[in-house]
Amino acid sequence: MAMENWAEASSDLQAFDPENGEPIVPAALRAPLPRAWQWLDGSAFRTHADLMQIALGHDPIEAEKPLMYQGMSHQFLGPTEDVALPSVQDGIDFEGEFGVIVDHVPMGTSPAKAMDHIKLIVQINDWSLRAIAPVEMKTGFGWIQAKPACSMAPFAVTPDELGDGWQDGRVCLDLEVDWNGKRFGAANGCEMAFGFHELVAHAAHTRELAAGTIIGSGTVSNANYPEVGSSCISEVRAIEMIRDKGPASTAFMAFGDMIRMEGRGVDGSSPFGAIEQQVVDGSSR
Amino acid sequence: MAMENWAEASSDLQAFDPENGEPIVPAALRAPLPRAWQWLDGSAFRTHADLMQIALGHDPIEAEKPLMYQGMSHQFLGPTEDVALPSVQDGIDFEGEFGVIVDHVPMGTSPAKAMDHIKLIVQINDWSLRAIAPVEMKTGFGWIQAKPACSMAPFAVTPDELGDGWQDGRVCLDLEVDWNGKRFGAANGCEMAFGFHELVAHAAHTRELAAGTIIGSGTVSNANYPEVGSSCISEVRAIEMIRDKGPASTAFMAFGDMIRMEGRGVDGSSPFGAIEQQVVDGSSR
Repeated sequence: MAMENWAEASSDLQAFDPENGEPIVPAALRAPLPRAWQWLDGSAFRTHADLMQIALGHDPIEAEKPLMYQGMSHQFLGPTEDVALPSVQDGIDFEGEFGVIVDHVPMGTSPAKAMDHIKLIVQINDWSLRAIAPVEMKTGFGWIQAKPACSMAPFAVTPDELGDGWQDGRVCLDLEVDWNGKRFGAANGCEMAFGFHELVAHAAHTRELAAGTIIGSGTVSNANYPEVGSSCISEVRAIEMIRDKGPASTAFMAFGDMIRMEGRGVDGSSPFGAIEQQVVDGSSR
Repeated sequence: MAMENWAEASSDLQAFDPENGEPIVPAALRAPLPRAWQWLDGSAFRTHADLMQIALGHDPIEAEKPLMYQGMSHQFLGPTEDVALPSVQDGIDFEGEFGVIVDHVPMGTSPAKAMDHIKLIVQINDWSLRAIAPVEMKTGFGWIQAKPACSMAPFAVTPDELGDGWQDGRVCLDLEVDWNGKRFGAANGCEMAFGFHELVAHAAHTRELAAGTIIGSGTVSNANYPEVGSSCISEVRAIEMIRDKGPASTAFMAFGDMIRMEGRGVDGSSPFGAIEQQVVDGSSR
């Protein structure tokens, strides 16, 4: 695969001219990596962490290091694939985020050197089941049932393709999120407390990272959420709890709901293409 | 790979006659799966969970479901491979356990049906860094830096090969553990609070499991530990803390230390072969 021999593969990819090929049929596109050897998802937006503490009702997390969990990586859903989940009682939620794909990273790599290992950037929906999340979190073991397969937008791009949209290891693009056709948020990826290079170095502290390892930013979230909105339902529910001093009013997703996510450059560009998916009843499968 | 087409592969494997081939050179053996799409490790021995609570100093874990974390799966060290880790300050510990390898498991599979998906059984050393573990555990996100690559004994065997050693989804073999040539423990795998079929069903509640997914038992541990010993250093340290009403006296591993683990049947058989590895300084790699 290209990630395992990047020096050679990248020149072939550079030579590819999208203007000169077949027209793109969105429904035929799969995830850039339909499966990967490793998926490590950070939680690098402080606003998200602060609001999730209220949404899930756990104690404040005291951590000087980046927050990160190991997620399932054997399956990434394609951008228009149906999302089959067992029950709406589980609190079905989306989490819009950005991610990077690295080549082989040796154990003990510094953040500065980690930057050079970031070869591709992707856009991810990290599906989450919020009724299960706090129960699993309390064990300290992280999430299994609360984190089913993620989805990925169709195109992975090299950092240079983003131009000013790639700054200090951060994806400085608005992530436009539409739930059932209505704008839900357009938070910017620039506000990460740690850059992706720091997340990569954190992940590689006691292990090598295999080529093709994907590292996520965590839910894109901004301090000015009243203006830009959110990238997951749980944050909105936390905001409602604070505002109303009571229970949240926005329900989680229902079967049949549509979610659309598209990273947008200041020039209006869409480097990753869109995720546009329906949640369906997977209980009888 | 064999796990993805088990019906065909299993008959070829059944026809294999180990008496009729090349002599085995232990140093040339690798892990049965040197990498896998998914590694989910349970913690199914209550004695281990109770002692770890003391060793790591966390609150009691209240969970009706099996405890399980998602570990790194892109690398499993071979049975005699050196184990390079960055620092003895991290509290280097072994964790002797058994594991199973499944074929494709659909989402929502019941424990009874999960039993049929268990195709192979393996023996694992789940390396752990105990100075980092409680810090990561407190975040609720599970372990990243505290869980480097695991090691695997050379042979994976079908459940029927274990005879009476496979009962109710449990590996009823003694796991002989020797640290620097001295017997450390020989706890039996039968005492799991949940059988492997229940761990598989737990893992598959909201996701499919890819063929070749490995599910671990957690550290093998018995209630009669004063007689049989332990399968990790942390348990011995917890026992010392209780006994001495003070700090533990047994130190974690040093560079140069050897660890040997071998599952042993009542007939003296060694179905998985032995793990025999040295811990080495990986800081300069």
